Amino acid sequence: MNSVSTFSQPMEPVTPVGKEDFRQAMARLGAAVNVVTTDGPSGRAGFAATAVCSVSDTPPMLLVCLNRSASVFDAVVRNGALCVNVLASHHDTLSNLFGGKTSVDERFAAGNWQRTASGAYALEDALASFDCLVSDSKDVASHRVLFCSVLDVRQGADCKALIYQNRGYHKIGSDQP
Amino acid sequence: MNSVSTFSQPMEPVTPVGKEDFRQAMARLGAAVNVVTTDGPSGRAGFAATAVCSVSDTPPMLLVCLNRSASVFDAVVRNGALCVNVLASHHDTLSNLFGGKTSVDERFAAGNWQRTASGAYALEDALASFDCLVSDSKDVASHRVLFCSVLDVRQGADCKALIYQNRGYHKIGSDQP
Repeated sequence: MNSVSTFSQPMEPVTPVGKEDFRQAMARLGAAVNVVTTDGPSGRAGFAATAVCSVSDTPPMLLVCLNRSASVFDAVVRNGALCVNVLASHHDTLSNLFGGKTSVDERFAAGNWQRTASGAYALEDALASFDCLVSDSKDVASHRVLFCSVLDVRQGADCKALIYQNRGYHKIGSDQP
Repeated sequence: MNSVSTFSQPMEPVTPVGKEDFRQAMARLGAAVNVVTTDGPSGRAGFAATAVCSVSDTPPMLLVCLNRSASVFDAVVRNGALCVNVLASHHDTLSNLFGGKTSVDERFAAGNWQRTASGAYALEDALASFDCLVSDSKDVASHRVLFCSVLDVRQGADCKALIYQNRGYHKIGSDQP
């Protein structure tokens, strides 16, 4: 290691990272935009989320990070069911609705949905949908990380994807026939 | 709810989702490409990762999903320290090296690094770097989800970002002066 000249010396101890510095740096981390839906005994809800990632393919599992103070938190956790819909490039308006202060009815009125096995809703023209049951969770700081067992997957047309990065939308890929 | 005509009826019970169907659908979920580095008593290592997401800003925390059978697993877990480097558009070759079978020395020789407070390495021209200590973890199926407390953040130049989606790289954003 000492022979590798491009390594510099350890830094001095650092001061704690502030919230705004963290958020600014984290804005550089691009991510797919998803609309996550739920329904069940605690009612219908949906929200836009970028903090979604694949965990395991055998069995198929993914995770969703959800702020415990989010308005949708109780519905998602109590229903124990959700569907992650990966948005296509034309879904920027839908993303804004599900990420804003719009009522549940208005959010869902902006898309066409199919009821899923979990009781949630798959967006008909999503790039992909993952219908899930929440099988485990862990509270980490302000958030609950939901570990979800995938019941069903659907793929839509292979069109451009919607990515959020540097506080703006980007459209990537190409529309395939 | 019954008045919303775009909702269809619940589906019939579904058959289990196969690994390949899950992977194909998950390929639609775009993600930033990161190189995660570590060093410490269990040695230096680094790998390319897309399964990284922000968890909380107060305190600043992120998560990294790591396959427990990955070659880098022991080093990361035993060192308990890592640095997530968010790659810029010109880092596709670096990503391939850190995602391939290349030796540790060859991987690191392809970039310029600065030692971080945690003992890991920040990539000098990364879009952003998050230096972390692993503060908690949870095993989920084949993977361990590492919950990381962020010690320090750095931002590089605001240039294009590297996104992986549909099994290919995409370059998004613009190069700012």
